[in-house]
Amino acid sequence: MKLSVNRDRLWAELQALGQIGRYRDETAQLWGVNRLALTAADGEGRRHVVERLKAAGLAVTIDRIGNVFGRREGREKLAPVVMGSHVDSVPTAGMFDGCLGVLGALEVVRTLADAGVTTRRPLDVAFFTEEEGCRFGTDMLGSAVATGRIPLEQAYELRDRDSLRVRDELEKIGFLGDRPERLEPPHAYLECHIEQGPTLRAAGLDIGVVTGVQAISWHELTIVGKSAHAGTTPMELRADAGVAASRINVRLREMIASGRYGPSMRATMGAIVPKPGLVNIVPGRVTATVDLRNPDDARMRAAEQDLIAYYAEVGREEKVEVRWRQTARTEHVPFAKSVQERVAAAAAGRGLKARPIVSGAGHDAQELARVCPAGMVFVPGEYDGISHNPREHSTPAQCGDGIDVLLDVLLAFAEEG
Amino acid sequence: MKLSVNRDRLWAELQALGQIGRYRDETAQLWGVNRLALTAADGEGRRHVVERLKAAGLAVTIDRIGNVFGRREGREKLAPVVMGSHVDSVPTAGMFDGCLGVLGALEVVRTLADAGVTTRRPLDVAFFTEEEGCRFGTDMLGSAVATGRIPLEQAYELRDRDSLRVRDELEKIGFLGDRPERLEPPHAYLECHIEQGPTLRAAGLDIGVVTGVQAISWHELTIVGKSAHAGTTPMELRADAGVAASRINVRLREMIASGRYGPSMRATMGAIVPKPGLVNIVPGRVTATVDLRNPDDARMRAAEQDLIAYYAEVGREEKVEVRWRQTARTEHVPFAKSVQERVAAAAAGRGLKARPIVSGAGHDAQELARVCPAGMVFVPGEYDGISHNPREHSTPAQCGDGIDVLLDVLLAFAEEG
Repeated sequence: MKLSVNRDRLWAELQALGQIGRYRDETAQLWGVNRLALTAADGEGRRHVVERLKAAGLAVTIDRIGNVFGRREGREKLAPVVMGSHVDSVPTAGMFDGCLGVLGALEVVRTLADAGVTTRRPLDVAFFTEEEGCRFGTDMLGSAVATGRIPLEQAYELRDRDSLRVRDELEKIGFLGDRPERLEPPHAYLECHIEQGPTLRAAGLDIGVVTGVQAISWHELTIVGKSAHAGTTPMELRADAGVAASRINVRLREMIASGRYGPSMRATMGAIVPKPGLVNIVPGRVTATVDLRNPDDARMRAAEQDLIAYYAEVGREEKVEVRWRQTARTEHVPFAKSVQERVAAAAAGRGLKARPIVSGAGHDAQELARVCPAGMVFVPGEYDGISHNPREHSTPAQCGDGIDVLLDVLLAFAEEG
Repeated sequence: MKLSVNRDRLWAELQALGQIGRYRDETAQLWGVNRLALTAADGEGRRHVVERLKAAGLAVTIDRIGNVFGRREGREKLAPVVMGSHVDSVPTAGMFDGCLGVLGALEVVRTLADAGVTTRRPLDVAFFTEEEGCRFGTDMLGSAVATGRIPLEQAYELRDRDSLRVRDELEKIGFLGDRPERLEPPHAYLECHIEQGPTLRAAGLDIGVVTGVQAISWHELTIVGKSAHAGTTPMELRADAGVAASRINVRLREMIASGRYGPSMRATMGAIVPKPGLVNIVPGRVTATVDLRNPDDARMRAAEQDLIAYYAEVGREEKVEVRWRQTARTEHVPFAKSVQERVAAAAAGRGLKARPIVSGAGHDAQELARVCPAGMVFVPGEYDGISHNPREHSTPAQCGDGIDVLLDVLLAFAEEG
């Protein structure tokens, strides 16, 4: 008989964790979640999940960067299959981002226990530290340390805006563990996550077979012109940093429309801060950000080069200086074919509509992909897949479908030799 | 013998007043001036100037909105010629804006006294309350009340950001006078002021013959789109309020370039505030400002109409709502031909290079123009005429030339029957 997870139990766990760190969001007129990494609220959320793992019979260990692993032993002493995600949040979160992957993995283990199934390989339910990067500025921090991209000592010294250090904050909430931070390569890593976008829901799909994480390039721009009186300064004598920023923003849109960088190129100017920012002063200085995404590394490089050339062009034309620095840069991370195939097969086996999808956001799975076959299951979200917002919402059915698929894929990997 | 003012004495007075309300400006690495209207610093500046007026033998009266008049009697009981400006400042000021017109008028009176000259008409040296509008939100407040544009009771009720009222603040600094606020129409009003722009200095001119103050139109925009994840949201599903704002900013530049609105049209987007303003979030909401200037009322109206039509167009195209409201609107104010002719003649008589110029900024003279022939003398400023900044600087020669011209024009009006 084919196992399925208990959707009510999963939903109840999501609701229970969602009460921790909750706040009243006046914009959304809803209760939201704020469990910024390594704050007291994150500590409370972590202890809650650790208790749930222990109650399910798992042996919990904590590593030196605060990543948590709940082990269920298998029939043989082999490398484990790890399922996980994160339980930290952005400051204005809902209750699904990350939590679905962790509580879903717990639900998989409970379902196996209820059915009296012991897998060949051991299983780990994991959650990683500071996935969001909102507090200490580096996202996927815990999984990056566990897989060797970031040295532990460097991670320890990261500071938040109040100059509080990662190491001290880990200690403060009781999650500075002693397990070695470098993860022994698992047999596979599996993560179920909300899509955080509108695609699956709009297409009437149940499951996204995640092919990989697109390349990401962030630029921080500092545009230096000359502040001047908006009433008295002739147009031809201006060096308007705001106009330069606006032209770059419009250019991003034109680059998309050109089709030169492929159909999946995305570009966003999320922040624009003109100084002094007064109605009757020509902005003399603007800081702005650019976020580029592309699933194709070559097209990403072409877009970056063309944009940087445009910075110089607009600088000359507007008589301003456009300085830029790279604040984030990751290549496209492809997920293992073996995981993609099993996710697709599991969805088909349950009559769920699925299609391949590239992840627009970064996830712990992209870090784990460095050391083992890794992959992800996406589920749709309501309200155009809004996320990082209290309106974030996936239904019990959407969550349950995703975790059923996670269960099937887990079993396939966990029974392998 | 032709009279000239004492440039050293004028310069010393500018320096002395510039010490009051001074602060260290870390950006400019200079001492700046902060005498925001009706603060303790403004009160100190006002008392300092009142003492200088009294020391020069003038009879000082204060009206119910805090405007100050120092009277020098003439040979006949006729309507006076008023010279003036303001001594309040923006929070990041230099020592010339407004102060040159007031202390220059004082210097004119002293020069006449030194020469034993009594004019036919009485003279007033005046300074007006809250010209800058930085504290209570309405510029030219004192002169607008004195000339009937704003009722006294309405002005009294204006509040600053801490909800402090104009009337209470006038009382607190001891400048709630009892002279009726409505000014008996003077014979003429004359004001010398720094240009606050680069034109005169760049053209190698000594004097600007101010033909009037251009029309001003301010819009505050609220653009409502949809916040979304920059990595996961397909371009075609976005409603990016930041792109809409950027397109409007670029459109302002295109409107200038079209030439449709005349060669003196100016347009500025000084403020752009995207929410939430994060690198990886498509801005769901932007507030922005537009500042339009034009010396021609018909061209200003055409520009406003075309821009408002564009708001709707960009709203449709970007799937956002562009709301706008008018936050300021003044028509072009022409200055009296009689004043312009006398300013031009005075400059020519002294061998100074002069040309007509439209004021880009608002000044008390535009309010006085409602009740009498009014006009202005502009002097150039260094550093591209930077103003509202501690770097604001006109040389002793530039200031002296302007006040010599003020003296000549004053004498012409003051000897008329």
